[in-house]
Amino acid sequence: MEKELIYLDNNATTRVDPEVRDAMLPFFCERYGNPSSIYHFGGEVAADVEEARRRVADLLGCSFRDRDGIASEIIFTSCGSEGDNAALNAAVCARPGRMRVVTSVVEHPGILTYCKELERRGYEIVYVPVDGRGRLDMDFLKNSVDENTAVVSIMWANNETGTIFPVADAARIAHEKGALFHTDAVQAAGKVKIALDELPEIDFLTISGHKLHAPKGVGALFVRRGIRFRPLIFGGHQERARRGGTENVASIVGLGKACEIAAGRVGREQLELSRLRDRLEQGVLERIPAVRINGDLENRLPNTASISFEEIEGESILMLLDQQRICASSGSACTTGSLEPSHVLCAMGIPYSAAHGTVRFSLSKYNTAAEIDHVIEVLPEIIERLREISPYWKERGK
Amino acid sequence: MEKELIYLDNNATTRVDPEVRDAMLPFFCERYGNPSSIYHFGGEVAADVEEARRRVADLLGCSFRDRDGIASEIIFTSCGSEGDNAALNAAVCARPGRMRVVTSVVEHPGILTYCKELERRGYEIVYVPVDGRGRLDMDFLKNSVDENTAVVSIMWANNETGTIFPVADAARIAHEKGALFHTDAVQAAGKVKIALDELPEIDFLTISGHKLHAPKGVGALFVRRGIRFRPLIFGGHQERARRGGTENVASIVGLGKACEIAAGRVGREQLELSRLRDRLEQGVLERIPAVRINGDLENRLPNTASISFEEIEGESILMLLDQQRICASSGSACTTGSLEPSHVLCAMGIPYSAAHGTVRFSLSKYNTAAEIDHVIEVLPEIIERLREISPYWKERGK
Repeated sequence: MEKELIYLDNNATTRVDPEVRDAMLPFFCERYGNPSSIYHFGGEVAADVEEARRRVADLLGCSFRDRDGIASEIIFTSCGSEGDNAALNAAVCARPGRMRVVTSVVEHPGILTYCKELERRGYEIVYVPVDGRGRLDMDFLKNSVDENTAVVSIMWANNETGTIFPVADAARIAHEKGALFHTDAVQAAGKVKIALDELPEIDFLTISGHKLHAPKGVGALFVRRGIRFRPLIFGGHQERARRGGTENVASIVGLGKACEIAAGRVGREQLELSRLRDRLEQGVLERIPAVRINGDLENRLPNTASISFEEIEGESILMLLDQQRICASSGSACTTGSLEPSHVLCAMGIPYSAAHGTVRFSLSKYNTAAEIDHVIEVLPEIIERLREISPYWKERGK
Repeated sequence: MEKELIYLDNNATTRVDPEVRDAMLPFFCERYGNPSSIYHFGGEVAADVEEARRRVADLLGCSFRDRDGIASEIIFTSCGSEGDNAALNAAVCARPGRMRVVTSVVEHPGILTYCKELERRGYEIVYVPVDGRGRLDMDFLKNSVDENTAVVSIMWANNETGTIFPVADAARIAHEKGALFHTDAVQAAGKVKIALDELPEIDFLTISGHKLHAPKGVGALFVRRGIRFRPLIFGGHQERARRGGTENVASIVGLGKACEIAAGRVGREQLELSRLRDRLEQGVLERIPAVRINGDLENRLPNTASISFEEIEGESILMLLDQQRICASSGSACTTGSLEPSHVLCAMGIPYSAAHGTVRFSLSKYNTAAEIDHVIEVLPEIIERLREISPYWKERGK
């Protein structure tokens, strides 16, 4: 019999919650009307899209509704990368003449590669460094933001180490100079509390459905009311002419449901996940020598453990874990295939010998203590086996 | 008991084929791995994405496979509008220095609004007119394309009238001047045969899933191999770094299935749909006076009937049809809400009195002769009722 899968790569993607799937199902073959149509069969679907929009807004702590009861600060997108691109594009368009963009060295490719594109369009990009624990250099940030800065984009929490950034402070620094502020909250949403009503300096915020048990291929971008929004994707009048294309109805309804479920769980989830995560880290630290936990241990996502096993290859660990049907990753799935160690760990100054042997375990509500215990049981043997054949480990032992 | 729905708005969106839904289902809660992950649970999903890509390529008659067997000319997108935007953006980037874009007056908003954006970026946009039957002015096109033209974009078939355009000829004209050629085939794919292998002058082609019984929120862009492709959405290395964002796996698999089904039906579908469409048009012409059928009757999609009922309002017709649970539309769902008559009918020079009273009926494989007969039965009464209260109709009667 095949072993049960132990899925510990929830920062890469998550299982769709069966409740979410069930909420989506009627919209494929029965309620398939186009929400922009004038007949009832379309209008009813439009109402479901608006209900989903309110649920997303609720998860983000954003209570604004327009005169029609619409949470009009939320724009549905197709993914986190689209949201990130669209936010930066809209921000630089809303601050014409300002030619600097400030971001961090540890952002997601959705930000970093779009910054390269902005660079080609003539913008100067300033990358704020992080320290050895992955914490943002706030003095550097403060000195980088000037009257020429169009937008500051700092992620809410890092996908590889889970480190949480002081986005409220960063947003204040941006606003002091008249710049806009965006945060990629793809990893934070559903895992920690987000209260946009209390953070008026955050102008844009990106989330992605498939990181919180909604399907892949849907996300949302929060755009604070009053900000002029130039679309990234032009088309019909959908999303108030801010995002063309027929609405991805089933997935939007799924995202709404996932946000509703997450909003009801976020406190409990934090506690349960961090307990499991700590159990994993403790177990590893107790049983395996020459190990380090990366990131800001005082201030990080409850579900993420970035663990460096010195003197061996992370990819080899992952392959041996895969043989045990345990899924984990060496960094962002978006950069898999690259032989370089993660840009995040490099930016933190983690020594090459440790960065290369780093594995990210990221948990979800579907993980159990039994699964964690099983990982703790099989991992020492895997590490030992790899170190036995590692010339670096032998060298070190001398 | 509620009446059965008669859905005749398939150019706006279609019912997902239950076979397509069933193909998608495992990818929500069971096979939810990220295709970019290195473990088997991700890699297996990546194989399914590639199988879907080949199925899309097959429907488009595009047999190229790279050394790994990948149909690498197909890029998955989130919708037709994204495909249209991405194609135009990539084309103008691939022809730097050329500052003209040639398109038609009757394109979809995914092209027309992006052309406005290109105009803001300094491009000159030339709009080729159509005649009273919706046919493209090919002399005008030929005279418009010059050495300064970056791209020509002409839709394969019009969404409102179903008129099919001579894209092979248009593509040849573009290439003669060194311009690239794009076609929005959103309405054509699955309804008429597309054979890209035989049309080497077509560089880009857009399709959308939800027009051919796949779900909303997924589409594909064909990009001829060898063309430098600047992405519209930047992120990770997905889609060979041509489209960022985690792959929308379930919907991509659904699109592949829908293309496979469509490829197996396209000849039969044409015949069956055009018979039903003709039955509708004949019935209307026999029973209702002062009616005209719009578009190129010799060369149009098999499923589309654009019918003008003179001297009354299309929106009123639609509302009375809606009371009978019959769904049709007055034009593109993407421009619903506007009080202006359709830009397509205006461009054709259809008199205002007729353009305003135009209804588009668009059929799919799910429609039956009984449904068509029912529409023919209730429509005369609706038209009569509206004409009784129309001052224009009374005026005309004098």
